[in-house]
Amino acid sequence: MKNADILTGITTTGTPHLGNYVGAIRPAIESSKEENKTSYYFLADYHAIIKCQEPERIRKSALEVAATWIAMGLDTNRSIFYRQTDIPEIPELTWILTCVTAKGLMNRAHAYKASVADNETENNDPDKDITMGLFCYPILMAADILMFNAKKVPVGKDQIQHIEMTRDIAGRFNHLYGEHFVLPEAALDEKSAVLSGLDGRKMSKSYNNTIPLFESDKALRKLIMKITTNSLAPEEPKEPETCTLFAIYKAFATADEVKAMATRYREGIAWGVMKQELFEYLNEILREPRDTYNRLIKAPGDLDGILKHGASKAREYSVPFLDKVRKAVGINRLG
Amino acid sequence: MKNADILTGITTTGTPHLGNYVGAIRPAIESSKEENKTSYYFLADYHAIIKCQEPERIRKSALEVAATWIAMGLDTNRSIFYRQTDIPEIPELTWILTCVTAKGLMNRAHAYKASVADNETENNDPDKDITMGLFCYPILMAADILMFNAKKVPVGKDQIQHIEMTRDIAGRFNHLYGEHFVLPEAALDEKSAVLSGLDGRKMSKSYNNTIPLFESDKALRKLIMKITTNSLAPEEPKEPETCTLFAIYKAFATADEVKAMATRYREGIAWGVMKQELFEYLNEILREPRDTYNRLIKAPGDLDGILKHGASKAREYSVPFLDKVRKAVGINRLG
Repeated sequence: MKNADILTGITTTGTPHLGNYVGAIRPAIESSKEENKTSYYFLADYHAIIKCQEPERIRKSALEVAATWIAMGLDTNRSIFYRQTDIPEIPELTWILTCVTAKGLMNRAHAYKASVADNETENNDPDKDITMGLFCYPILMAADILMFNAKKVPVGKDQIQHIEMTRDIAGRFNHLYGEHFVLPEAALDEKSAVLSGLDGRKMSKSYNNTIPLFESDKALRKLIMKITTNSLAPEEPKEPETCTLFAIYKAFATADEVKAMATRYREGIAWGVMKQELFEYLNEILREPRDTYNRLIKAPGDLDGILKHGASKAREYSVPFLDKVRKAVGINRLG
Repeated sequence: MKNADILTGITTTGTPHLGNYVGAIRPAIESSKEENKTSYYFLADYHAIIKCQEPERIRKSALEVAATWIAMGLDTNRSIFYRQTDIPEIPELTWILTCVTAKGLMNRAHAYKASVADNETENNDPDKDITMGLFCYPILMAADILMFNAKKVPVGKDQIQHIEMTRDIAGRFNHLYGEHFVLPEAALDEKSAVLSGLDGRKMSKSYNNTIPLFESDKALRKLIMKITTNSLAPEEPKEPETCTLFAIYKAFATADEVKAMATRYREGIAWGVMKQELFEYLNEILREPRDTYNRLIKAPGDLDGILKHGASKAREYSVPFLDKVRKAVGINRLG
């Protein structure tokens, strides 16, 4: 089994929405189709338990995320699609890396520092309500990446530090025990679209303004009708570039379609008409994947099988590789 | 498989010496012979890699510790004797517990605070040279104990805090996810003998004053001849209770033998005579186990087999139990 050219994890705490699809899922699926490239995609459920203490939500999200990626066209034969918790080598590597990670490095992690800053603002103990999960998760992330010696890790700007930390930890291990880990590179994803949500802010679970990918057609229509617009009357000319409806349309339509729609904006398309057209456009695109999704969600055993198959492919790499790592630190077989 | 009534780990960084035997190994082996009691003993090699970056030393120590316990009479059929790194459920539970452990709890760990105090004395950054292994190991220790729901954990005074932390972490998990973990109790070992070493200080690897258990008879004699005594001449009466030679003799001899030897001290036994007698006494006791030990050390594959057998017994408990824990936090099978 080849090590990872590209590796991406998805935390399993929510229901995939249009923003996730446009910003992360679609580009990942596209990139997985490139020839001669080994792509690793995983459900990051060891990460999910850091912040989410609702077991049913995590389990449901894992199901939904897995079904979404497959329904949207991920080729699970070509790429390696697995659940993090199906790879026991990952928590083991996490501990081994914990032993070579400087505490000072973790002290500097953005997410941890932000929580400390919040506590200090409120005159609380700096570590109030901070768990070791939050403090240690950059090490788990390093293990996710180094377990498969991933070369490139697509990240947003806020995650570049994690790749730097991974490089630091890998370098320290290599220095102590010989060259075992490839130092990964961050593939900064600057062009991936950020979609606006129902209220015009960035579509995000935390703003509660999302449009889930696979609502029924009725529910999808209802949500689109709720998208905030300005109060321009029908026939008044409208500005496409600042409009949430237009942005969502643009994220799916062809260049020609987008151009035509921009013209109709300037000619004063009514908001009600635009909403109906956007709904019909999206609904057409989502109809088939939605059927697949609904079928998969109803067959969790099949999804488990697909993920277990992915895990067994991933473990063709992780099992022999962890064996070498164990030998390097002195915890291999005695005889 | 029953959960652990008693659980003890041995860090694999050194060669077992007389002090280890008298202070820890012998009482553990004796306690393992009690009826109706499930004793878990393990080589703590995930702990070894926290401080020791010499793979060959860790591997050799694991071999020596395993051979010592068996040579000294541990019944590996009655008790469960395993290597920590043969139980993949332990690092996984470590991560799960990491997610429920308050960082503030780790901030208060004695070993961590001592390292910070040292750095502050030297006007260094408080976390200089402190690894996440040192910072997080109370969580690994909690996983060692909670993995088998151990009821009693024999500890020295300096380790009581670890049991308190384990109870704290277990209580937090139970509060969030329902009652899964038994809160362990520290069994404070107040009477276990502390043996003096060659220079009269406590026998300890860190003082480099140890008498390894299984040196050859020649080397054992040479070491005993090196033990520091006072300069009283032969025939001068001597004080047994402050004498290292007498203390070692006492740790092995019967009450009658000890009494008789005390009389000879008051009658002025010569140091040379006492050393020769101590050597002969110990050598007689150690001869047979030494043969067994040497045979085992030469057959690391056999030792591996014994430990693997122990691990498979331990995993009869840990595998189904971790499954329940995974289900509780939401990372169980999808279907």
